[in-house]
Amino acid sequence: MTTEEFIDLRSDTVTKPSDAMREAARNADVGDDVHRGDPTVNELERRAAELVGMEAALYVPSGTMGNQIAVNVHTEPGQEVLLERESHIYRWEVAGASWISGLQPRTLDAGDRCVPTGDAVEEGIVEEDLHRPGTGLLTLENTHNYRGGVAVPKAHLDEAAAPAHDAGVPVHLDGARVFNAAVALEVPITDLLERVDSVNFCLSKGLGAPVGSILAGEEAFIEEARRIRKLLGGGMRQAGIIAAPGLLSLENIDRLAEDHENAALLAAGLDELDGFSVPSPDTNIVLAHTEDADITATELVEACDAVGVGASEFDTYTTRFTTHLDVDAADIDEALARITEAVEPMATA
Amino acid sequence: MTTEEFIDLRSDTVTKPSDAMREAARNADVGDDVHRGDPTVNELERRAAELVGMEAALYVPSGTMGNQIAVNVHTEPGQEVLLERESHIYRWEVAGASWISGLQPRTLDAGDRCVPTGDAVEEGIVEEDLHRPGTGLLTLENTHNYRGGVAVPKAHLDEAAAPAHDAGVPVHLDGARVFNAAVALEVPITDLLERVDSVNFCLSKGLGAPVGSILAGEEAFIEEARRIRKLLGGGMRQAGIIAAPGLLSLENIDRLAEDHENAALLAAGLDELDGFSVPSPDTNIVLAHTEDADITATELVEACDAVGVGASEFDTYTTRFTTHLDVDAADIDEALARITEAVEPMATA
Amino acid sequence: MTTEEFIDLRSDTVTKPSDAMREAARNADVGDDVHRGDPTVNELERRAAELVGMEAALYVPSGTMGNQIAVNVHTEPGQEVLLERESHIYRWEVAGASWISGLQPRTLDAGDRCVPTGDAVEEGIVEEDLHRPGTGLLTLENTHNYRGGVAVPKAHLDEAAAPAHDAGVPVHLDGARVFNAAVALEVPITDLLERVDSVNFCLSKGLGAPVGSILAGEEAFIEEARRIRKLLGGGMRQAGIIAAPGLLSLENIDRLAEDHENAALLAAGLDELDGFSVPSPDTNIVLAHTEDADITATELVEACDAVGVGASEFDTYTTRFTTHLDVDAADIDEALARITEAVEPMATA
Amino acid sequence: MTTEEFIDLRSDTVTKPSDAMREAARNADVGDDVHRGDPTVNELERRAAELVGMEAALYVPSGTMGNQIAVNVHTEPGQEVLLERESHIYRWEVAGASWISGLQPRTLDAGDRCVPTGDAVEEGIVEEDLHRPGTGLLTLENTHNYRGGVAVPKAHLDEAAAPAHDAGVPVHLDGARVFNAAVALEVPITDLLERVDSVNFCLSKGLGAPVGSILAGEEAFIEEARRIRKLLGGGMRQAGIIAAPGLLSLENIDRLAEDHENAALLAAGLDELDGFSVPSPDTNIVLAHTEDADITATELVEACDAVGVGASEFDTYTTRFTTHLDVDAADIDEALARITEAVEPMATA
Repeated sequence: MTTEEFIDLRSDTVTKPSDAMREAARNADVGDDVHRGDPTVNELERRAAELVGMEAALYVPSGTMGNQIAVNVHTEPGQEVLLERESHIYRWEVAGASWISGLQPRTLDAGDRCVPTGDAVEEGIVEEDLHRPGTGLLTLENTHNYRGGVAVPKAHLDEAAAPAHDAGVPVHLDGARVFNAAVALEVPITDLLERVDSVNFCLSKGLGAPVGSILAGEEAFIEEARRIRKLLGGGMRQAGIIAAPGLLSLENIDRLAEDHENAALLAAGLDELDGFSVPSPDTNIVLAHTEDADITATELVEACDAVGVGASEFDTYTTRFTTHLDVDAADIDEALARITEAVEPMATA
Repeated sequence: MTTEEFIDLRSDTVTKPSDAMREAARNADVGDDVHRGDPTVNELERRAAELVGMEAALYVPSGTMGNQIAVNVHTEPGQEVLLERESHIYRWEVAGASWISGLQPRTLDAGDRCVPTGDAVEEGIVEEDLHRPGTGLLTLENTHNYRGGVAVPKAHLDEAAAPAHDAGVPVHLDGARVFNAAVALEVPITDLLERVDSVNFCLSKGLGAPVGSILAGEEAFIEEARRIRKLLGGGMRQAGIIAAPGLLSLENIDRLAEDHENAALLAAGLDELDGFSVPSPDTNIVLAHTEDADITATELVEACDAVGVGASEFDTYTTRFTTHLDVDAADIDEALARITEAVEPMATA
Repeated sequence: MTTEEFIDLRSDTVTKPSDAMREAARNADVGDDVHRGDPTVNELERRAAELVGMEAALYVPSGTMGNQIAVNVHTEPGQEVLLERESHIYRWEVAGASWISGLQPRTLDAGDRCVPTGDAVEEGIVEEDLHRPGTGLLTLENTHNYRGGVAVPKAHLDEAAAPAHDAGVPVHLDGARVFNAAVALEVPITDLLERVDSVNFCLSKGLGAPVGSILAGEEAFIEEARRIRKLLGGGMRQAGIIAAPGLLSLENIDRLAEDHENAALLAAGLDELDGFSVPSPDTNIVLAHTEDADITATELVEACDAVGVGASEFDTYTTRFTTHLDVDAADIDEALARITEAVEPMATA
Repeated sequence: MTTEEFIDLRSDTVTKPSDAMREAARNADVGDDVHRGDPTVNELERRAAELVGMEAALYVPSGTMGNQIAVNVHTEPGQEVLLERESHIYRWEVAGASWISGLQPRTLDAGDRCVPTGDAVEEGIVEEDLHRPGTGLLTLENTHNYRGGVAVPKAHLDEAAAPAHDAGVPVHLDGARVFNAAVALEVPITDLLERVDSVNFCLSKGLGAPVGSILAGEEAFIEEARRIRKLLGGGMRQAGIIAAPGLLSLENIDRLAEDHENAALLAAGLDELDGFSVPSPDTNIVLAHTEDADITATELVEACDAVGVGASEFDTYTTRFTTHLDVDAADIDEALARITEAVEPMATA
């Protein structure tokens, strides 16, 4: 990296595929995946299912599609889906659960680790009657994006899932960054997922693949998911070209620890700036609160951009910085230097 | 009334039509309302629109249909609808807003008078973008059923409606019992409705008609509502038979004051029972909280039933009693006497 | 009838309730039907179920609601529903099967008696796979409205139903006027319905009730139907007021024969007019084709209206006349005289 | 090719990316396309729009998604969409138009060139009223897949589109293989598309790209399409990896002529087999009818497979062979030799 380079911390979705991934794309053994004839996709689905300890898996073009398929397959229209108030499925997926699947969301408050408590879930479950929609699904999220990459411990997930299972309600985990959680919590991924019925995780975020996510669950669930993927237009042809880098991305799990260290470094540095409050992050998402500095997120994002650091607005006074495999500790130092310089005149204003 | 008679306080939906209403049904001038050829329905719609100060009105078989039509006509699928957390449309209408109209509900907390504050509404409004559904509708409810027939003052309604209108979002009022509110607040109904774009009110609750509700709004809104009524199967033929008692029910508005007095009487009496906490009601709905008495709603409803008083479960420890035109002050005295007798052995237990 | 009276042959939906029906409405024993507490509705549902030989029945405000509920309960979204090309459910119910229930209609040609042949049904059934929606329902219609009140014989219904049942696909009959069919065919209604899983029939057409239809089927089907009725807003309160005339309307079945005779009389008379082609009707619907007379339906309806006869446009050169219990043979003679007089100057033009 | 190689004529979706395409994938300049930051996708969209003479274009993971987005953006739920009876959108897209978008399909018969005649379209257009859904969209298909790759001439497309436009109804073309049509008809693609409002075409069929399709239309249409793509889960990240081969695939247009020659060669050869009737194809899809040979499609596909030729069942007695850039004239000769050998014993049976 030279000082001229843009340090892009807007999201871990911005990672560029590595040379090895590009080589893999070039050399991928491919076929028509709609006919299940793409050996690379088949291998990716097999490996991914094994990795998360589920019976089967499905490669989909995006995390949103993985989540929306899961929501659809687990439910019937006219049911309720339980969601934490700030979850991605509720906030950022264009109302798909209601629009595509005819579900009524019931939003729950987060407990201390970003998932609803067992009591909250138990209270939120509704039994179908003449007037009321019954609960068809509970979704959880780990790490929790909007709350700053919080790694939700297994105990909290299990506590939330228990009353759902007791009531016969399935549990889907939006695990877009679930490997960040497993690495941060130092638990095997299969332990973390022990009590969820299906999980969606992204290859294209911290793992660095160019395109795609994995939906995993029971054999029969994935079979129906394949049909809904076709309905939504997610059936691709020689998808091995992108599945091949996806396979390589599975080797990037352990190195997520490095992103977390870099995020901690960044948070500590930012927290020292006047009027900045920047909690130490669990994983790779840093939220900088700047109300006391009287700097809005819009202003901070612009100021960062002007000095070659990418950040993203989260709220009026909250700005998000995300670390990923295209930035290292030196980049973080450089980013901190640039931001400090950029913020100085704003603070003195 | 004789002491043997069942005193039905389960709901004001249980009222039997009066002799005058029955006569009106018998003698109604009717025609085919789908062809707009029923003079009695036409007259009811004209009178109802005038009464609430709106351009036009539509007779529908139920309050649920009136609400669901309004929700559909005001919005497009994939939008959000803002609802108070315990509102009827969200709780008791079988997820219709999501199921029929593809909307994502965003539930808001109630302010001190059962509608969200202006700030809460303003914060709840979402602007459509690539990831987010935009807000298509705000619904309010007056009186608020689930919170105990609370009469929401005009100032609170207007405060909630203002940010919606500023953002170009229409406001629908679920006014199933809105005349109870107007009477309790002693304001003209047209004042109360000044800032809402459409209203639904029931003829079959406190007003005593056997069947039907009125949806009112602008001419163009009602024209489209007529089409959605047909879609949902609410187009009836010689509906004058039920519209005629509906017309008479409009004369029962002022006497709702009597229901409110009876409810106050009942609440005061119940509140004196050991371990009962029964707030004085705004209108005709009495909520008895019996946690301190260690009596569940299930137990209380059963005990009441055993002595000839109808009540309905609302929550684990909350029981609802509703007054209406088929019960008078003497019935309330009798009901209190019976309940007191019924509760005594439970309390000593 | 005096010669000044308007003879309304637009539809059998225009019938006014008889004095006996009005008396029944006046005196009906009522309750809250949403709580299943209306004895008159309960009795109507019991009698109606018995009459058609089904386990249970549900009173609904309209035939459209009855059909749409059936369509919803029998299917899952994303399936296909098989319909005759000109059936009421496909043509006149505002796309409800797709809009409310997410179904893809597959329209079939009518065989010689207005229902698809067994071969057509068999060919139309699709097995669900990755790309294709599976068939979820076959609907039939008897009498067939748009094709002129054709009474479909049991053999034709059974032939169409057989391949559906063989494939595990349920069969719903839109029997808005199914008693006209049974009377015309001189078969017991239970024979006619032997092979259908659910039936909807209207009390408010030839049977003369002011409002309502009956949906009948198996116990479990009707239980779920009750929930969908609530969703669509068809749950009514003291519906006994209209169910009471509905009960009386069941006594009007045998007299439908009179309507058929009157229709035959009218058809024979109209067929003698120059350029009119008017097939002898099976039941109470007369279709007059006037292309050879160079008279459009719009012109004929206007001309009839001018002389006090109600008719309805059906197609460019097809006009529909419907007999019902408010017209007798003398009315038909008078109507013929008036139409003849009205048509004469048009023909000589 | 050696004689041992499998000659895959199942579909033109089976084509493997060329070395140049693989190189392009390897070297693609990429970014986050959800943030519109992928230069290769941007370039592909710009080039594709220009190529088809439309304002803007959108890269989507599949043809099904392109079609379903178009259907959704052009319409409102509860409308009708006009479709040829055997069109891909109606037959093979899992009822998406009804399931996702709430539309009622109205299927039309094909005229002599696989699109409905102008008269059929005109007759099929319904004006919205109280009972009827209005027509929201006409879709056409070119080449027509299910009818054997028929190239629909501009005159036929324009004739079908005219009454739609006269009624204010937009026209979408499912042009999965529209370049095959342009090449076969020897007309510029922009001429062919002159009267359609939007078009979808596949990069992954005859053009040989591994993944993806293009939806093109007006600027405002594509802006809304981008939102619906996100809803359906088609928003991808570093999609340049697959867009780069997509860009190269646009250079394969002229060589489709070769596929057509090979298809003609294959058809002529197959037609000489006893009992085979194989019309000369317009483009790259050959339909072999084998009823007279008493060979079912299932049998023929199996027999072909046994000798190393891929074919696909289309109907009981119809088998489809599709040529594409991975087969040349020598492959066709070899395939014919193998099929002849395979069929011989069946014929003598």
